[in-house]
Amino acid sequence: MIDVAIVGAAELEGEALLELMQERAFPVGELHLLADDDSIGQSLPFGARNLRIRAAASFDFSRVALAFIAGAGLGPAAREALLAASCDVVDMVGALGQQATSCLLPGINDATLAERCPPRRLRCPMPTSVALVTVLAPLARLQTLKRLVVTVCRPVSVRGRSGVKELARQTAELLNARPLEPRLFDRQVAFNLLAQTDEPDQLGHGAAERAFAEELTDLLGLPQLQVSSTFVQAPVFFGESLSVCALFDAPLDIVGAYAALDMVEGLELVDSPDYPTAVGDALGQDLVYVGRLRSGLRDASEVNLWIVSDNVRKGAALNAVLSGELLIKDYP
Amino acid sequence: MIDVAIVGAAELEGEALLELMQERAFPVGELHLLADDDSIGQSLPFGARNLRIRAAASFDFSRVALAFIAGAGLGPAAREALLAASCDVVDMVGALGQQATSCLLPGINDATLAERCPPRRLRCPMPTSVALVTVLAPLARLQTLKRLVVTVCRPVSVRGRSGVKELARQTAELLNARPLEPRLFDRQVAFNLLAQTDEPDQLGHGAAERAFAEELTDLLGLPQLQVSSTFVQAPVFFGESLSVCALFDAPLDIVGAYAALDMVEGLELVDSPDYPTAVGDALGQDLVYVGRLRSGLRDASEVNLWIVSDNVRKGAALNAVLSGELLIKDYP
Repeated sequence: MIDVAIVGAAELEGEALLELMQERAFPVGELHLLADDDSIGQSLPFGARNLRIRAAASFDFSRVALAFIAGAGLGPAAREALLAASCDVVDMVGALGQQATSCLLPGINDATLAERCPPRRLRCPMPTSVALVTVLAPLARLQTLKRLVVTVCRPVSVRGRSGVKELARQTAELLNARPLEPRLFDRQVAFNLLAQTDEPDQLGHGAAERAFAEELTDLLGLPQLQVSSTFVQAPVFFGESLSVCALFDAPLDIVGAYAALDMVEGLELVDSPDYPTAVGDALGQDLVYVGRLRSGLRDASEVNLWIVSDNVRKGAALNAVLSGELLIKDYP
Repeated sequence: MIDVAIVGAAELEGEALLELMQERAFPVGELHLLADDDSIGQSLPFGARNLRIRAAASFDFSRVALAFIAGAGLGPAAREALLAASCDVVDMVGALGQQATSCLLPGINDATLAERCPPRRLRCPMPTSVALVTVLAPLARLQTLKRLVVTVCRPVSVRGRSGVKELARQTAELLNARPLEPRLFDRQVAFNLLAQTDEPDQLGHGAAERAFAEELTDLLGLPQLQVSSTFVQAPVFFGESLSVCALFDAPLDIVGAYAALDMVEGLELVDSPDYPTAVGDALGQDLVYVGRLRSGLRDASEVNLWIVSDNVRKGAALNAVLSGELLIKDYP
């Protein structure tokens, strides 16, 4: 049994993580739920236990073998303590920074793990990368992938519970014809689409868009890959939707592409004229859904597809548990 | 003064057309409002006049010099009568078919008009093409455009008033935690994104996607242009949003691109870190808004942008009035 700490346990990703650890019978010994916000003092169930969330800042991380960071609730003090401790870490939110961690997507670059000396500090790819790499890795084995153009429609839950509340509030105000004063988002997101999800840099690229391009080239092992992405904030509560155009260096047989995708574990291919949606298919599922698979209108080197995935459960929590499962394989 | 008929006057596009004809002081003589649905018998104001909508099927089109088709309300009988009459036509919905009409986007391919013998039957491009060509034509003059990848997020108003009603109904049901039975759309569109807007063909392409690619290559005069598009149904009432990646045959100086776009009439360029949205900027406006203009992360031949436009007013009605204005220039 492994003693485990979860920072940000009360956030959406934290709760999904707790749920998945129970479902997958993760061998949890002592379990410490931690936070750095007003969720301290709340209790969460874990199997028969009822666990109180305590302050991350005063926690002694040497008490655990493995820590998950599931939310932004890791203050500077806890961050220092965690970096000084010898426990393994699965960082789901990039709290420890790129320098201190290696990006792991189980099933794609497991070899990364063997290269690391203990303590092994892993960073989870963003849910968008998890969904896209799951679909593209098998296609990139058929033919060299040259360029990706992706429009990512993110749900408000990427901003946590407050994002979910704000979309519900805005929607209700508008339906009741009351004047709207946007909070959290910089403008009306209900019945609207916002063309960026964070502050762009001088060249106009958002931080998420840059990180996404880097993760894709790293995880696919294609340093020459051209990546164009636009991250859009959609009026959707849960579940990401990706509109993808992939360009290969030569024609890709679409029947072969179907066959390759059909064999991938964790992926569900939906045939035309049906297609998957975030809400109708992906929510609560451990699968990435792909549909609208089609060649270019006049270019057989072009493949278009539509990908949906539960950003909280599949994109974040499941990936973190799988990373944890890989880590504890080597435990005595 | 020109005698005019408007078929589908009670539809969203028809009403916007009436509004714009008044605003722009279109020299209307007699005005006949027609329909082929339950709007027959309704009255609509036009200046001081109050006009009753009559049945299109029994109308004698030889009474007018110009007819607009603003909605689907043109039955087979009225279609035959219209094709037999000698009046000019501005077909906003493709009711007369591609064979019988020429596609005109005023300001882009006005020369088309001179090539036609009377009666001149014009077809308006789809609103999505209007928005995109307005932005791309000046860029395509700077450098040869090779490939376009576009994700089009369409509002429910492309399905008319019933689309608007259905999104409102679905949203209210969901906010009140009542079970949802989708109508009109094939599934839940509220708080969700649907990956196609019409039935795809055997290769997986939608009719709108095919028509869009054809209109773009025609209007831009680039028969070799590769176009990839995905038409998405978004939970937005009014206003289209386009996420666009344009690939040129050589690096495009982004400062030059800014300057070129800044000079275009009917286009508003929004500088980063600000960006335009369909609801916040485009609604009710005669402008196409473009923002998030940026080069590729690692490819200066790549330009990305975000375009929003009022699909009803700017994309359909304004374009139709402008076409009408071009037609009547030659009237005695």
